[in-house]
Amino acid sequence: MAKVAVVMGSASDWPTMRNTCTTLQQLGIAYTAKVISAHRMPMELQVFASGARVAGYAVIIAGAGGAAHLPGMLAANTTLPVLGVPIQSHALSGMDSLLSIVQMPSGVPVGTLAIGNAGAINAALLAGQILALQDPALADQLTAYRTAQHDAAVESGAQLSD
Amino acid sequence: MAKVAVVMGSASDWPTMRNTCTTLQQLGIAYTAKVISAHRMPMELQVFASGARVAGYAVIIAGAGGAAHLPGMLAANTTLPVLGVPIQSHALSGMDSLLSIVQMPSGVPVGTLAIGNAGAINAALLAGQILALQDPALADQLTAYRTAQHDAAVESGAQLSD
Amino acid sequence: MAKVAVVMGSASDWPTMRNTCTTLQQLGIAYTAKVISAHRMPMELQVFASGARVAGYAVIIAGAGGAAHLPGMLAANTTLPVLGVPIQSHALSGMDSLLSIVQMPSGVPVGTLAIGNAGAINAALLAGQILALQDPALADQLTAYRTAQHDAAVESGAQLSD
Amino acid sequence: MAKVAVVMGSASDWPTMRNTCTTLQQLGIAYTAKVISAHRMPMELQVFASGARVAGYAVIIAGAGGAAHLPGMLAANTTLPVLGVPIQSHALSGMDSLLSIVQMPSGVPVGTLAIGNAGAINAALLAGQILALQDPALADQLTAYRTAQHDAAVESGAQLSD
Amino acid sequence: MAKVAVVMGSASDWPTMRNTCTTLQQLGIAYTAKVISAHRMPMELQVFASGARVAGYAVIIAGAGGAAHLPGMLAANTTLPVLGVPIQSHALSGMDSLLSIVQMPSGVPVGTLAIGNAGAINAALLAGQILALQDPALADQLTAYRTAQHDAAVESGAQLSD
Amino acid sequence: MAKVAVVMGSASDWPTMRNTCTTLQQLGIAYTAKVISAHRMPMELQVFASGARVAGYAVIIAGAGGAAHLPGMLAANTTLPVLGVPIQSHALSGMDSLLSIVQMPSGVPVGTLAIGNAGAINAALLAGQILALQDPALADQLTAYRTAQHDAAVESGAQLSD
Amino acid sequence: MAKVAVVMGSASDWPTMRNTCTTLQQLGIAYTAKVISAHRMPMELQVFASGARVAGYAVIIAGAGGAAHLPGMLAANTTLPVLGVPIQSHALSGMDSLLSIVQMPSGVPVGTLAIGNAGAINAALLAGQILALQDPALADQLTAYRTAQHDAAVESGAQLSD
Amino acid sequence: MAKVAVVMGSASDWPTMRNTCTTLQQLGIAYTAKVISAHRMPMELQVFASGARVAGYAVIIAGAGGAAHLPGMLAANTTLPVLGVPIQSHALSGMDSLLSIVQMPSGVPVGTLAIGNAGAINAALLAGQILALQDPALADQLTAYRTAQHDAAVESGAQLSD
Repeated sequence: MAKVAVVMGSASDWPTMRNTCTTLQQLGIAYTAKVISAHRMPMELQVFASGARVAGYAVIIAGAGGAAHLPGMLAANTTLPVLGVPIQSHALSGMDSLLSIVQMPSGVPVGTLAIGNAGAINAALLAGQILALQDPALADQLTAYRTAQHDAAVESGAQLSD
Repeated sequence: MAKVAVVMGSASDWPTMRNTCTTLQQLGIAYTAKVISAHRMPMELQVFASGARVAGYAVIIAGAGGAAHLPGMLAANTTLPVLGVPIQSHALSGMDSLLSIVQMPSGVPVGTLAIGNAGAINAALLAGQILALQDPALADQLTAYRTAQHDAAVESGAQLSD
Repeated sequence: MAKVAVVMGSASDWPTMRNTCTTLQQLGIAYTAKVISAHRMPMELQVFASGARVAGYAVIIAGAGGAAHLPGMLAANTTLPVLGVPIQSHALSGMDSLLSIVQMPSGVPVGTLAIGNAGAINAALLAGQILALQDPALADQLTAYRTAQHDAAVESGAQLSD
Repeated sequence: MAKVAVVMGSASDWPTMRNTCTTLQQLGIAYTAKVISAHRMPMELQVFASGARVAGYAVIIAGAGGAAHLPGMLAANTTLPVLGVPIQSHALSGMDSLLSIVQMPSGVPVGTLAIGNAGAINAALLAGQILALQDPALADQLTAYRTAQHDAAVESGAQLSD
Repeated sequence: MAKVAVVMGSASDWPTMRNTCTTLQQLGIAYTAKVISAHRMPMELQVFASGARVAGYAVIIAGAGGAAHLPGMLAANTTLPVLGVPIQSHALSGMDSLLSIVQMPSGVPVGTLAIGNAGAINAALLAGQILALQDPALADQLTAYRTAQHDAAVESGAQLSD
Repeated sequence: MAKVAVVMGSASDWPTMRNTCTTLQQLGIAYTAKVISAHRMPMELQVFASGARVAGYAVIIAGAGGAAHLPGMLAANTTLPVLGVPIQSHALSGMDSLLSIVQMPSGVPVGTLAIGNAGAINAALLAGQILALQDPALADQLTAYRTAQHDAAVESGAQLSD
Repeated sequence: MAKVAVVMGSASDWPTMRNTCTTLQQLGIAYTAKVISAHRMPMELQVFASGARVAGYAVIIAGAGGAAHLPGMLAANTTLPVLGVPIQSHALSGMDSLLSIVQMPSGVPVGTLAIGNAGAINAALLAGQILALQDPALADQLTAYRTAQHDAAVESGAQLSD
Repeated sequence: MAKVAVVMGSASDWPTMRNTCTTLQQLGIAYTAKVISAHRMPMELQVFASGARVAGYAVIIAGAGGAAHLPGMLAANTTLPVLGVPIQSHALSGMDSLLSIVQMPSGVPVGTLAIGNAGAINAALLAGQILALQDPALADQLTAYRTAQHDAAVESGAQLSD
């Protein structure tokens, strides 16, 4: 059963949000990916978010761009942890997405990640870190992921040449 | 019966949004003012917005600050014209409010006014201009309002002295 | 007779503003599109704006970029609702256009939409929503437009695959 | 035993970060508050972060301002979830803090909250939401917290008067 | 007869623009100060600007804040040199004023000075430098002004003590 | 004899600054174009600027990018009018150039134009407007230039089609 | 003999730059503090900078605000290390100062520190670190300074209480 | 033996940071280039920085992008001079990198250079200027470098033609 819901505001966010899904797969975390537009599907948003805990989800990851209301409105309808990924927007490079997601008022948190692909990958990792609090095997996998990253970074130093 | 709904995300927005109400009063436009927090009262938001047309409203004015989702989410639930007022926020002076309100995706418009008091007043005036399309008396009042502004500006030139 | 005037500061704004026109066509709203440069055609601007109501227009949509004075100066010369579309500018990506349009002083409102194509489309929709206050058939069309958007968003979720 | 570590880069961040502590207290979550300056106490940072899981912490909340390296460097040394609170800085109002915290590279996530007090409160709530995944009583408390917020927002509407 | 017109969009700009007038007085340059709101007095703007050359003005200095259209619209109606002073605005500290004034499209220049008092003083000096091209006595005065500034700066070094 | 000096900080600014030269040519204004790097040729800068009036120049136009010190340092060494053109820089799109040029302290003005090509053309036009104060034929030419622009703008409206 | 020159563009920068001097005193580093305005004293700037090495200076620290040309122009006239301190400006909070100082073109470096007091202190420390490369006693003092900072940070943790 | 360590957060920073290395080579300064990711190799960072003085390094140059913690964390672990190069990031063009590097708190300085290639070259030159304080031959080389730059700038003026 899916533990993580990966929600995005538009199918055009998929090139970014597929990085979330790929990373969840690498960690062996079951997930569902879906499009729920805050502005075009507000009813579905509310139904989904208010039923997410009962549906068995533990973490919701939401990616959106521009006036990015999806993560905050999901958070307004659930007390599950919601993680937000600001999509790099066309005119303002994601600064609008970032501020729309991170500047939530007190009471309704959204844990916000970096703009774009790095944020999409990190949302999956942070979801993994949250789930790993009750899943030692996943904690080990995250440690292994870090170790692999560390080793790749160390090795990449050998590439410095022209 | 109220033609304009003045909605704000928090009672702390009242010092700004009362300017909307005062201006509507000056124009003799009936209105209702209410707090509907997008993040703390999402159900009320949806109920209000989806029923606003039937309730007899013609225009919705919404003020919000920070990750300001209220105007856009109201707009997502109605096809009445929605006008947004970015509240001047503490840390980022309303730039976050502005981008969260104005950068709506195609399909769900919010007519956005200036940050702070000027925007609050202008939201009332724009609502008046919209209603005046079917209310010649109101159109006359708006013209009178402009004339008064014009005259005050002309007269203010006499104050230039030290 | 045209109900909506679509005005732009330069023919180079047409790739953006044609989205306004296409959307108005989809809604069956009669419109006129014209170039009126605030800085190169100030006389025409004043003549047009001050005569717009008598000419039968109900809403003016104005797109401009950079030091974008067109929407505000049109608004200064009419009490018809004026909607502004910030064109994405070369150096500053439309942030200059946005601030030049939205930060109007109290007394002369411009209902501002998003930078670029989304804003151009939404200006047409907001004009439609304004006109629909006295045109139930148009209101139905806007509802149908929303429904089509909703359905397309729902269906787009099926495209999420790699 | 403390489940949450509340870490800040300087004692001058306490006026903001005490909001985190107060909120954790309201939720009955055991925590420890400490100053660990990333730049003045780098050894302590590494020792603390790499030992935090063994020490029994489940979530780390870190507040820092300016070139805010504390949350990211804590995250670099642990696979526990790290939540970052951008302190409102003097010259740049926390925009430097925000970007220094949120724009982490892929591999090392920091779940970032809003600038200032709202972010400090929300970090506590998000930590609570994470812990509540394995603590139904805490989940109930978070629901009650939301309900109280909802009710306060509803009631605040009655204050709209001059 | 006045050589320089000092125009401002609102009497509230006077605390800034009086610095322009004081500096013109110091240089012995005749000027007229007036309020012409671009948005509240568009007719007066056009009449004034298109008649400014015939009225004997050589340079127009215009101060405005927010969506600051006054300098550019004056420039659109005259081929006299127009100098713009961005007033420090409330929410955005004059960044909106600056971009609205300086980002003029090709064809209609506004020589823009700094935000606030420094810009107001410098607009007067630049006007003086322009007039001095045909007025050697004024050129001498400007040189003397610079020398006095130089000497004051040199002497100010002696104040460095605690 | 050249009336206008067109100075740029680097030969890489030429694609922008050639627009200044082309426009001066169109107006029949004699000019000299030269590279004077504020940072690589500070001696030449000082020699040039302090001798510019004696050399017969009436106006100096300076284009520079990034930490753009050239216009301000030229202005510091002459009381001739100096006009600044912010070159569109690589990383920050000319925002750094703009602020480095326009935010001059009181006492030493630089009349600043728009970022990039529009600014380069407008610097030439503003120089022309300054020179035209004592050259009625040039004033006529500028009026003709405006008329041509006006006519082209009017005609461009016919291009609006898809 | 003074090893460090502390230069500022205006006596009004002294409240910030005195922090540089106090810190140099704490480190026992001989210095001279002086006002050299880039725009009001360009000759003195060039004379000072080009003679600084012969005068025995090893490092130049320069503080300036707004269109802050002083650090870069000093650097243009010497190959001594130049460190820049962006003064927090009135309208733009030092963002203009920062970009004017840090965005130097290739060939003429300015090592830039933080906006305001932190930058002023750090400029002194970085100068100390540079001088310490050939002064082991100073290196020891810097280590002691760091240790004292470390200890103070550690102790400050005890202040966390309400 | 290498005097300068050129450190970067990722092998992807090499296209920028190779400019540092090329410039050091031109100056005949021995250096080592290495990848040390602050977030993926925090242990190596601390080991390297705290041992850098003993290892014989005199200056550390660090390039990093986004939430760029590398330069500041190196500086936190050594009293050697640390110079920071903000890499031009994808979404925010290096503004995030710049603020993360330059806005260091008092006590731990990083001498920050421009975003991108210019900064990378200038970091090498500033390192050279620091080393030249005890190496007259290097000082001569830097003077020669400047002279060559000067001459190239002078000659480039001849390229201004169309």
